[in-house]
Amino acid sequence: MTADQNSNKTMRSYRLKDTGSIDNLNLVTEDIPSVQRGEVLVRVKASALNYRDLAMIYGDYPGEIHNNLIPLSDGAGEIVAVGEGVRRFQVGDRVAGNFTREWFGGKRPDYIEPYGSHSDGWLTEYKVLNPELLVSIPSHLTYEQAATLPCAAVTAWNALHGPQPLSAGDTVLTLGSGGVSVFAIQLAKLLGLNVIATTSSDRKAEKLKALGAEKVINYKTTPNWGEVAKDLTDGRGVNRVVEVGGPATIHQSLQAIAPGNELALIGVLTKTGDKIGYFDLFGKASTRTIGVGSRSDFEAMNRVIEDKALAPVVDSVFPFEEAKKAYEYLESQTFFGKIVISHQ
Amino acid sequence: MTADQNSNKTMRSYRLKDTGSIDNLNLVTEDIPSVQRGEVLVRVKASALNYRDLAMIYGDYPGEIHNNLIPLSDGAGEIVAVGEGVRRFQVGDRVAGNFTREWFGGKRPDYIEPYGSHSDGWLTEYKVLNPELLVSIPSHLTYEQAATLPCAAVTAWNALHGPQPLSAGDTVLTLGSGGVSVFAIQLAKLLGLNVIATTSSDRKAEKLKALGAEKVINYKTTPNWGEVAKDLTDGRGVNRVVEVGGPATIHQSLQAIAPGNELALIGVLTKTGDKIGYFDLFGKASTRTIGVGSRSDFEAMNRVIEDKALAPVVDSVFPFEEAKKAYEYLESQTFFGKIVISHQ
Amino acid sequence: MTADQNSNKTMRSYRLKDTGSIDNLNLVTEDIPSVQRGEVLVRVKASALNYRDLAMIYGDYPGEIHNNLIPLSDGAGEIVAVGEGVRRFQVGDRVAGNFTREWFGGKRPDYIEPYGSHSDGWLTEYKVLNPELLVSIPSHLTYEQAATLPCAAVTAWNALHGPQPLSAGDTVLTLGSGGVSVFAIQLAKLLGLNVIATTSSDRKAEKLKALGAEKVINYKTTPNWGEVAKDLTDGRGVNRVVEVGGPATIHQSLQAIAPGNELALIGVLTKTGDKIGYFDLFGKASTRTIGVGSRSDFEAMNRVIEDKALAPVVDSVFPFEEAKKAYEYLESQTFFGKIVISHQ
Amino acid sequence: MTADQNSNKTMRSYRLKDTGSIDNLNLVTEDIPSVQRGEVLVRVKASALNYRDLAMIYGDYPGEIHNNLIPLSDGAGEIVAVGEGVRRFQVGDRVAGNFTREWFGGKRPDYIEPYGSHSDGWLTEYKVLNPELLVSIPSHLTYEQAATLPCAAVTAWNALHGPQPLSAGDTVLTLGSGGVSVFAIQLAKLLGLNVIATTSSDRKAEKLKALGAEKVINYKTTPNWGEVAKDLTDGRGVNRVVEVGGPATIHQSLQAIAPGNELALIGVLTKTGDKIGYFDLFGKASTRTIGVGSRSDFEAMNRVIEDKALAPVVDSVFPFEEAKKAYEYLESQTFFGKIVISHQ
Repeated sequence: MTADQNSNKTMRSYRLKDTGSIDNLNLVTEDIPSVQRGEVLVRVKASALNYRDLAMIYGDYPGEIHNNLIPLSDGAGEIVAVGEGVRRFQVGDRVAGNFTREWFGGKRPDYIEPYGSHSDGWLTEYKVLNPELLVSIPSHLTYEQAATLPCAAVTAWNALHGPQPLSAGDTVLTLGSGGVSVFAIQLAKLLGLNVIATTSSDRKAEKLKALGAEKVINYKTTPNWGEVAKDLTDGRGVNRVVEVGGPATIHQSLQAIAPGNELALIGVLTKTGDKIGYFDLFGKASTRTIGVGSRSDFEAMNRVIEDKALAPVVDSVFPFEEAKKAYEYLESQTFFGKIVISHQ
Repeated sequence: MTADQNSNKTMRSYRLKDTGSIDNLNLVTEDIPSVQRGEVLVRVKASALNYRDLAMIYGDYPGEIHNNLIPLSDGAGEIVAVGEGVRRFQVGDRVAGNFTREWFGGKRPDYIEPYGSHSDGWLTEYKVLNPELLVSIPSHLTYEQAATLPCAAVTAWNALHGPQPLSAGDTVLTLGSGGVSVFAIQLAKLLGLNVIATTSSDRKAEKLKALGAEKVINYKTTPNWGEVAKDLTDGRGVNRVVEVGGPATIHQSLQAIAPGNELALIGVLTKTGDKIGYFDLFGKASTRTIGVGSRSDFEAMNRVIEDKALAPVVDSVFPFEEAKKAYEYLESQTFFGKIVISHQ
Repeated sequence: MTADQNSNKTMRSYRLKDTGSIDNLNLVTEDIPSVQRGEVLVRVKASALNYRDLAMIYGDYPGEIHNNLIPLSDGAGEIVAVGEGVRRFQVGDRVAGNFTREWFGGKRPDYIEPYGSHSDGWLTEYKVLNPELLVSIPSHLTYEQAATLPCAAVTAWNALHGPQPLSAGDTVLTLGSGGVSVFAIQLAKLLGLNVIATTSSDRKAEKLKALGAEKVINYKTTPNWGEVAKDLTDGRGVNRVVEVGGPATIHQSLQAIAPGNELALIGVLTKTGDKIGYFDLFGKASTRTIGVGSRSDFEAMNRVIEDKALAPVVDSVFPFEEAKKAYEYLESQTFFGKIVISHQ
Repeated sequence: MTADQNSNKTMRSYRLKDTGSIDNLNLVTEDIPSVQRGEVLVRVKASALNYRDLAMIYGDYPGEIHNNLIPLSDGAGEIVAVGEGVRRFQVGDRVAGNFTREWFGGKRPDYIEPYGSHSDGWLTEYKVLNPELLVSIPSHLTYEQAATLPCAAVTAWNALHGPQPLSAGDTVLTLGSGGVSVFAIQLAKLLGLNVIATTSSDRKAEKLKALGAEKVINYKTTPNWGEVAKDLTDGRGVNRVVEVGGPATIHQSLQAIAPGNELALIGVLTKTGDKIGYFDLFGKASTRTIGVGSRSDFEAMNRVIEDKALAPVVDSVFPFEEAKKAYEYLESQTFFGKIVISHQ
């Protein structure tokens, strides 16, 4: 036990009483949990929002959410106490939670209860955890930056990896400027890949170019952006689509892809769109769903992020007390990159 | 030059004058081509039929077919002459053609003109070829057996391999008893895989079991065969579907597959069916199209076939003179395995 | 807490007081540890011996061994109590320990303290553990059989897998009839591989053939067994050597291997032998060291073992009270397969 | 046939009469070969030297060299005539020869007779070839630059790829400033890898840094360069050694490598050195021999070279008439990068 805890026996958490409104997030005071054998206590320093967190609020998330849940899948913090027998971390280590918890590598176990939906999440000041559920964060990142990694960055990393590896010089198509897409652009550049991005405004196009996208298509003024993306590769087609859209974007994505290459399916941002015929897939693209990723994936990504000093794009940081404003800002869809909450 | 050629300066070939009818296949006599530097002359001993060959007859094949084409993609024979500088084969070697010709490995070149559709095929007595377009056939096979391999067996092999490898103990679902499905069952057993097969009759079910399928579902009496296949894996789902059906079968295939596992898309046997929603794929299956395979794939498969002495299932052998009857039999859809033409 | 524990508050363990003699193994009585949050209590039902356990006794193991250590890396048992929040296992589940503990997949962490050398092992009646350190055992195995898997079988599995995958029809060379070699033969057969084995007696040769080795070479009467193994593959060479010997066997192993194929280095059974020249490796074989394996590897192997109902070769089972006799029998080197201790 | 040929029926070639001296290279005039069916005629525009070419001169190359051989494995040129039925290339296409000729992908065939050792090489003005033995060269390269690729660049590419893939952020150790090492540095940077290089002079060190090597060690003043390289990775060790040295360098390379990572064995530059003990390999490094590579490898590399506009380091270009001076310069060992001969 550390001085930190002795001087402060209680902590604050947000808990979601019922679904339906951001106002159902209640700020409560509760006891700081104590570490037992094999556990660590994390002082959460920052958390980050994803679209799924908004879906959770509105009861629009598949699966039953337990009542009085602490929300948010993503967070980073400092180890402030370690239980007996812990060797993985020491007090003072800087860590983040792995989105898919006990998925360490290999096949994903079926007993996982993701943070912020099936088990308590990170919108709190302290968490007691099995240290295996945490990863070390890159040394050059602030806690605010590190909190953005678990869901969006690991998803982007796995969209760019997988059974059909990309090679330097290949071209990736990203859609829009949400967290996954922005990380996909940044990571693609570290891997020697070329990027074509889509966006809805010239202002965002400039930002995407500054991140390294060689070419940007305005999908509002260019509704056939998939065909245009294909033309931009001299007609060969792109080698991967980071498909964050869903039913409404997949048809254009299928226009963009080179035969035999892969659509990485991530998206649930749109709910409806024309269905796909068998012959839209056959001979066209491979498809694979990205379910975030394992701890091994997270750690492999962090080695590259650290080595190349990648700086996550943090759109804005809200203080812990104003967490609801962070949700409202997420709802506004006017951001670029990640929305973070500081717990410090 | 060998005695074989000296005694016989002409050969017989079938050529397809116009599409529309099996009767447009004309048996013609023409000169045996001579080998030049770097070439080999093959005495074709057997050829085999695939559904695509029937589609070709009826003008139902995508892409323009050149007039007076020698049909059939699949054939095997003996090297009877070698040109200057050839080291890959010697006179007397037993060979088969590689369906995708100049696709040796790596990315498929775009200049390939497949046999029997874009370039002359194997329904002839002699062929002059670049020796790189041929593979050695397993020593235990007759020419009739070897002729069945290029299209159906290589397709089945690649459906069972690819970027997401199967592991011994995994379960494969095959559809029906055409050439690809029968090879898929036989190869799956050599690889330590379990097989669930579908078929339309009890008689065929017995044959599929004799080939090694642990479980067989009658898809006529069990229209929800996909769900049943999933139940047969204790609800986990199958690890691969060798999807030879197409639009009319893919929905049940999607019911059968375990999340994250792959539908290997091969089929064009059906033309119509309900379309697929994005959420039928998302979180369900990966998909990949099998376009037969490279020479490296063919050679890797042959090593296993030889080592395990796999015997291709030849339903019937027609003499060269009765090649049209082989087409008619293919049209009848009453066969099990492969239909072969003997050129000896 | 279960009835099992209520009726019995103490347990027996063997602890190694000092190195030097099997007699330094002391049977002690101590309290059964209690489960805390996130932990499980295992009633150990069986444990198994490996050469390293003997090396530990004689102080012949690299690295410092802590005093009063409970020995043995391998064990299996039943979950008899689960702490708060455990979802991975339930009371009654049958489990084994993963040799490399916190190595779940991906890169091996450097903080691992293997059982029976750096941390307390399995020669005890109860163990409290993080449930992530355990794997479910195949349902057809007894505890005695399952206890043999963690070190020897996972090592054999990884020797047959790795970055350069073997293909059905490839040939594996195994050395002798220790635990790793016997598992390598059994697993190789499940994977469609051919096996050439070496041994020192005709009696053992018969046993190896019964397990599936197609060919067996007596290395005592055939000192150039590596060359002979190569001849047995029609001069092509074997595709993998499961190299359990070490310095004294590697030269013959290098004679046996096909160019570009891999020696899987496992062995420390021999200490001395002629050194290797650069040109003994260059253009000859790849080499890779097998360090047992990750939990993902163990679980992948168990799926195959269960599906194919592989029966581990248990040479003999000693009662817990006679554990020292098991060590002495290991020392005699007259066994075939695994030596097991029953804790029931 | 083209105007080029009509106006010039003869060509010049160098042929090696006997081994022993550079002066045994005779410049001869001979007929330009004519293309036959399935062949192309290449006007060779440039060729490049490798150490093996000097070994050939001095009879120091393993295997029998045929008399009157045209030397050099590496060359690039323009297609000036195509035979009947050639679809892969057209007149005017820019190509290079693939070092390992008929190795297209998959397993290397055993009938390959490499250029400039077992079959006539590229130190000539025209070559007739099977078009499958050629690859298209990146459009931004001159013929002089492209001629450097077949042996050195493909070897470097494969040293950085293979069964155990490197990841962006990993560190590669290169030895000296020969062709393979210089390409390895350049390619490593395109793949997001870090580079530690060794060299013998400060002047060369500056050049290696200019190519992208983050750190350079002078191996003359730092005989324990392997340990120093390891220290430069914070003690973790490098992830790959491009081992072009051989017996005299492998011990330091084994000091540098991180456990489980790979020494890519290429080198025959040194002939003698201390032998390796089993325990120098066991638990230390994996090893693999690089035998240049397949056409698929060459084409994959060219896609990256073209996309990233990599410029091969050409030390100097000698005119065709002064080819012997190029050999003498190679012998001097004072160059940096590749020595090229222009045939224009």
